[in-house]
Amino acid sequence: MRRKVYEQGVPFAEVELSGDNPPVRLYDTSGPGSDPLKGLPGLRADWIGTRGGGKITQLACARAGIVTPEMEFVAIRENMDASVVRDEIAAGRAVLPVNVNHPESEPMIIGSRFLVKVNANIGTSAVSSSVAEEVDKLTWATRWGADTVMDLSTGKRIHETREAILRNSPVPIGTVPIYQALEKAGGDPVKLTWEMFRDTVIEQAEQGVDYMTVHAGVRLAHVPLTAGRVTGIVSRGGSIMAAWCLAHHRENFLYENYAELCEIFARYDITFSLGDGLRPGSIADANDAAQFAELRTLGELTHVAWEYDVQVMVEGPGHVPMHKIKENVDLQQELCDGAPFYTLGPLTTDVAPAYDHITSAIGAAMIGMFGTAMLCYVTPKEHLGLPDRDDVKAGVIAYKIAAHAADLAKGHPGAQAWDDALSKARFEFRWEDQFNLSLDPETARSYHDATLPAEPAKTAHFCSMCGPKFCSMRISQDLQAYAEQGMRAKSEEFRAAGASVYQISSTGGQST
Amino acid sequence: MRRKVYEQGVPFAEVELSGDNPPVRLYDTSGPGSDPLKGLPGLRADWIGTRGGGKITQLACARAGIVTPEMEFVAIRENMDASVVRDEIAAGRAVLPVNVNHPESEPMIIGSRFLVKVNANIGTSAVSSSVAEEVDKLTWATRWGADTVMDLSTGKRIHETREAILRNSPVPIGTVPIYQALEKAGGDPVKLTWEMFRDTVIEQAEQGVDYMTVHAGVRLAHVPLTAGRVTGIVSRGGSIMAAWCLAHHRENFLYENYAELCEIFARYDITFSLGDGLRPGSIADANDAAQFAELRTLGELTHVAWEYDVQVMVEGPGHVPMHKIKENVDLQQELCDGAPFYTLGPLTTDVAPAYDHITSAIGAAMIGMFGTAMLCYVTPKEHLGLPDRDDVKAGVIAYKIAAHAADLAKGHPGAQAWDDALSKARFEFRWEDQFNLSLDPETARSYHDATLPAEPAKTAHFCSMCGPKFCSMRISQDLQAYAEQGMRAKSEEFRAAGASVYQISSTGGQST
Repeated sequence: MRRKVYEQGVPFAEVELSGDNPPVRLYDTSGPGSDPLKGLPGLRADWIGTRGGGKITQLACARAGIVTPEMEFVAIRENMDASVVRDEIAAGRAVLPVNVNHPESEPMIIGSRFLVKVNANIGTSAVSSSVAEEVDKLTWATRWGADTVMDLSTGKRIHETREAILRNSPVPIGTVPIYQALEKAGGDPVKLTWEMFRDTVIEQAEQGVDYMTVHAGVRLAHVPLTAGRVTGIVSRGGSIMAAWCLAHHRENFLYENYAELCEIFARYDITFSLGDGLRPGSIADANDAAQFAELRTLGELTHVAWEYDVQVMVEGPGHVPMHKIKENVDLQQELCDGAPFYTLGPLTTDVAPAYDHITSAIGAAMIGMFGTAMLCYVTPKEHLGLPDRDDVKAGVIAYKIAAHAADLAKGHPGAQAWDDALSKARFEFRWEDQFNLSLDPETARSYHDATLPAEPAKTAHFCSMCGPKFCSMRISQDLQAYAEQGMRAKSEEFRAAGASVYQISSTGGQST
Repeated sequence: MRRKVYEQGVPFAEVELSGDNPPVRLYDTSGPGSDPLKGLPGLRADWIGTRGGGKITQLACARAGIVTPEMEFVAIRENMDASVVRDEIAAGRAVLPVNVNHPESEPMIIGSRFLVKVNANIGTSAVSSSVAEEVDKLTWATRWGADTVMDLSTGKRIHETREAILRNSPVPIGTVPIYQALEKAGGDPVKLTWEMFRDTVIEQAEQGVDYMTVHAGVRLAHVPLTAGRVTGIVSRGGSIMAAWCLAHHRENFLYENYAELCEIFARYDITFSLGDGLRPGSIADANDAAQFAELRTLGELTHVAWEYDVQVMVEGPGHVPMHKIKENVDLQQELCDGAPFYTLGPLTTDVAPAYDHITSAIGAAMIGMFGTAMLCYVTPKEHLGLPDRDDVKAGVIAYKIAAHAADLAKGHPGAQAWDDALSKARFEFRWEDQFNLSLDPETARSYHDATLPAEPAKTAHFCSMCGPKFCSMRISQDLQAYAEQGMRAKSEEFRAAGASVYQISSTGGQST
């Protein structure tokens, strides 16, 4: 079975296995469980107090050589030395998003040296969903492994929705403040002002938002570069800022007031997520001049944030064919001096709406392997509608697969132990262990039971795919035992034993 | 709408678009529709007759400089010159699997210069499914885009099931004859003989099987190399042959009688699919000594088949972490002199049973990009049970995505036109065009309608994801029109027009 265990206060999902197989510990994001009326306990409340005034960001602390309790926490979580955590943060290669006003969160780290993380987007829109639904999606998303959640609510009740999400979230919460600012501007981008935006940021900062997407890289001069595109500007924030820049024929006010933004972010230890407002929205537009012009600006803004001791990560695309993926990571890492990359997919083809969790899991796994630190999920509803509960799960699972595949490819220490434990259970026909070790135990169990529902089938040395006679693993197990004893001498013995090996087991469920 | 069109007898799915957008032609595998009572018409019956006696394989013809009607057919299908088709076959870099006794099939080609193909496995097992169900799965699989189908039936009624499948299949059919041979041996691998196997091959050849998996590379000396593995031998055929080799302490009879097998295959123009009986069944076992020892033997056997003018492709893994995928293709291409590679996935992690269509679509897309010619699908039921109709569809769709992503990454001529047409439709809010161009129009349409079911929403310039105010594509469209007219001079004009842009459209379905 699976149960939650704590090691020095750090949560893990521990999978107990049968026989003398040691238990397996998995990274766990599900939190202590939430009660939307009361919210979660303030795990970090005491730690935050100790930092007092002055420079309070994790980056400032790391640069001062301090290992914060948050860094200790993630060190245990990632099975790494705390000094590595501190050094990666100090160098800007990792971020630990922890607004001082979000004490409920369990610290986690985003950086290419650590496990690849997954973000799930939720949020109401003008035409869909309620506050309670969104809190439910949050809890559901972290249950399946979302490492952070972005609240992308638009329409009414943005503040209230966000409050409910923050008070119930064990993971860092990200937002895109321009959405709420636009509501304050009556929905007209042209009427947006820096003051509206700034006040919105402060309102959200007070609530405890851990990281914010800011589209400060959509500069006036970049906008005409999108004119020849197949799909123009597909980022909401990007299109809003582009409309503002063009209408006023002025430089992006986020770019112009970026220093003040840094000062605000530093006070709360909010992490920048520098938005890629000009990301490609189709295969045709991938890696084009507009996208890379903005990326150069994001590199510049990364360095400015660091001057203010503000943590920063950089957002990336989008829609990119496989052969153009690596260039994105390489250029971002170069221009942003190793700041964590945080990409949306990318989708590797445009032709499969309703399956974009798959078109993009392909790109996400690859870009993770190349060094992207966090993957923003895409659900089956992408391009078609808002994700419901099932879509959230489908998106998170597809992205946990991509992230773990990337961890394996990067040779992350300990990542393969999970695969090995599951494969060993599979080879030894420990069905229950195999289910419990699965990313989604319930579904794995139900798929098995669909063909062989009888309880004895759970201990049978075969499954419905091959039936008892053709079970390669069963034959192979016998071979292995045989090979261990030397080959030739045992030939006769194997032949004699063989007859029983391929008989139908008395525990079998083959007739069900 | 979509409709089937024929160009010089070659089928395509033509998607008609609205306005003055030109129709888009897509590769089509669905065949003329099947009637299990009568079977399909014998499209190739006349062509086969013309080849008469002597060397009749496509490889022999290509080597003699002949462009067969089958080559003409695939040249039109792939939008390539027929001489390229002939030359690739002659060089062994492509196969055109066409048993002379399967006239119902529509010729298709497998090779790295051509579109990446997808195979779907179906078939009964001792504990599950019926003949009618399998024919239904065949039709269903080709409807969604399967380029070939393998009938992996075991248990009773193997012959009857295969006959029904062949007579109703517009795509090449593959089998693994050792499964039926084992039934003839009473299910005991030790009792298998070359004669049983040979007679089974001839029985299946007479029925019209287009390609056959033969595990001739599992040599006696390779078997001990698997002893230290986490998951031993996971190929059914591989484990059967390994058991036989060990029990008799003799060389694999398929290896020893390979020349005779080539002679039989040459008579019917059956294509070898050289089985990778020692493929890895877990991340831990990827790219190990056993796997690559077998691959070297497959290289040797490839060259022997070519001496007999027999077409050959080579099977590959399995379970491989992303960073070890490329080595598989490179080594196979080197050892097998460019013979088409045909891989099962590979799965890029072991931890997600019930989602192995996704774990493996990642690997399949990558291995396709690196040069694999055909991808054998994996369904959500892999490792857990036999796929039902829904699983077949899920597997085929995931693999069509992987194959098309690989076509894009390889820069296959014309591949991106599909993406561009769909993205253009998306950007222009031509919802119906977008649905019709989708890999799965029904599901895309139903996902859209789940949030905005009203008919006007199909023409609305937004969807439920962002709602009318936040639609980036809508803002972006206006920007594009604006940019085309020059920026500064039009600033006032844009501002004046802006107010209406962000008003809720009178055709909108936002309140539904």
